[in-house]
Amino acid sequence: MRDTSVTIQDVARAAGVSRQTVSNVLNTPAIVRAETRDRVQQAIDRMGYAPHASARRLRTRRSATIGIHLDPYAGGISGVVLDRFVHALTEHAGERGLRVLVYAASDHDEEIRRMADLVDGGDVDAVVITGTAYGDRRIDWLTQRAVPFVSFGRPWGADDVDDPTYLWVDVDGATGTRAATAHALNRGPRVAFLGWPAGSATGDDRERGWREAMAAAGAPAELRLVAEETVSEARDRVAELLSARAVDAVVCASDTLAVGAHVAAVAGHRPDLAIVGFDNTPAAEALGISSVEQLPELVAAGTLDLLMAGGPRIERRTPTPGEAHVLVEPRLVVR
Amino acid sequence: MRDTSVTIQDVARAAGVSRQTVSNVLNTPAIVRAETRDRVQQAIDRMGYAPHASARRLRTRRSATIGIHLDPYAGGISGVVLDRFVHALTEHAGERGLRVLVYAASDHDEEIRRMADLVDGGDVDAVVITGTAYGDRRIDWLTQRAVPFVSFGRPWGADDVDDPTYLWVDVDGATGTRAATAHALNRGPRVAFLGWPAGSATGDDRERGWREAMAAAGAPAELRLVAEETVSEARDRVAELLSARAVDAVVCASDTLAVGAHVAAVAGHRPDLAIVGFDNTPAAEALGISSVEQLPELVAAGTLDLLMAGGPRIERRTPTPGEAHVLVEPRLVVR
Repeated sequence: MRDTSVTIQDVARAAGVSRQTVSNVLNTPAIVRAETRDRVQQAIDRMGYAPHASARRLRTRRSATIGIHLDPYAGGISGVVLDRFVHALTEHAGERGLRVLVYAASDHDEEIRRMADLVDGGDVDAVVITGTAYGDRRIDWLTQRAVPFVSFGRPWGADDVDDPTYLWVDVDGATGTRAATAHALNRGPRVAFLGWPAGSATGDDRERGWREAMAAAGAPAELRLVAEETVSEARDRVAELLSARAVDAVVCASDTLAVGAHVAAVAGHRPDLAIVGFDNTPAAEALGISSVEQLPELVAAGTLDLLMAGGPRIERRTPTPGEAHVLVEPRLVVR
Repeated sequence: MRDTSVTIQDVARAAGVSRQTVSNVLNTPAIVRAETRDRVQQAIDRMGYAPHASARRLRTRRSATIGIHLDPYAGGISGVVLDRFVHALTEHAGERGLRVLVYAASDHDEEIRRMADLVDGGDVDAVVITGTAYGDRRIDWLTQRAVPFVSFGRPWGADDVDDPTYLWVDVDGATGTRAATAHALNRGPRVAFLGWPAGSATGDDRERGWREAMAAAGAPAELRLVAEETVSEARDRVAELLSARAVDAVVCASDTLAVGAHVAAVAGHRPDLAIVGFDNTPAAEALGISSVEQLPELVAAGTLDLLMAGGPRIERRTPTPGEAHVLVEPRLVVR
């Protein structure tokens, strides 16, 4: 058992050496004579001395801690995805001897203030940001302050997608919806896509997978629906589609939309309609809806790989192209 | 902008005082002459000196940080409840100047090892534990080590429920199911309860609310079903009930069970069957199922109230009876 009430001075007195010698044994043992080193080490072990973590951090200027923002809880079926990532990051970080500090912020400016406090105070060595947007002020700030960071999410539309100094991990949405569409095509060629209104880079990426899979199968990609991210709007759009057109399947940009499609299919007595969601949430699982699984475990592992670059700790570094990005291939879960 | 490269020595040199004087200005300003204090403060402001957080913590032996274990992500409809609590705790802690450090552990013994590391290292001032069970080893360890802690969950079945040294916050499950049952009785007197197998103190508490509301209404509490926490088992039990007996409503111990009941009602063409869940999860919201909302915001605020006891920081203290527990009254969300 380590005893935090024992000081370095106590150890020095017990071993009959100076405080500086104890410090040398702890930090630069090579410069201490072997017999002195043994005597000090025995005193440390006997007395249960633990260098205080704050002292160790002050000395090394390293906290072995990663900061990550927790969004205010917004509810919704798909809100669980970021939480799964935080769980996985915490687990993987622990295995690599790192800690995770979470902080709340209601917008990007507040998040920057929280990051500034933590970075200035030496509380974190690096941060993870999520939900990146074009012209993201956080990225400017982190780059300017030379704070090591990884983004879960690509710098959509920015010129620096291939800039190796910007480290990011993301899930390959188009690959996910390609797999979803290929599966749905088993039911028939009339596969609709239910996506979000224009302006979502993530949504465009997911739609692209549907278009590519339809083209590969020689099926026309013409049934394209749009709904806000709510169950009721998705339900209404799919109900309208079912009453107007012949449809074999609906591939959706999210599980929220897929649950809406499912409700419309049940109400319209269309148990044969294939529906595929995205995120593999508990709601999709409960209702037996197939869905694309983002594999947050791999996203978390990729985040830490980028931050640590194969080393034992987080370093500021300039990665080479090809080492700066991890694109996780999602997996279709068929139900 | 604070500059972490500026040292206390730099400030001392610029102000023409000793290092100790700068330290006194920061920590015990009352003992420094006013004109010296002003000169030092001007140098601090001009140079953007920030006392390193690790140094401040080493000095105060306080981390202003709370630790909380994150369960491995288990999936499931109701898994979101603890995440909502962590979100709310992070938000409320930030408002009170505290930080939240999360750690993974696969069982109570590992959680104790993680807590020991953090406590020994001065990384946390207090911890929050969740998912308490009878004979919980974590509670013994925390009590023995005199680590301030609050438990989200009562010490079910233990003798120390009323021991004011054991701080806990919990949600009053029986009050929630009483409200759910009173609402369901509007549909008719035959209100069933769908709960978990015996041995769950939380489940017994929720069942008690149903029994009490039925007794208050003079309705016989005889339709008592049991299912494991899965949608499919709940669906099968409710389907059996609907084919065998006349039922007006089903009050459920969780939203997972309520989703199963909902699926059985849809399949059995019983849109009139009232169903009430517990936890107000996104799945219940998506399917339009009424549910009891645990109000994690109030649980988080209660946790911090107990840890801080009205003061500006976390202190080890012996609370008086009546100050050691917070029982949050949940709210029925009718859909």
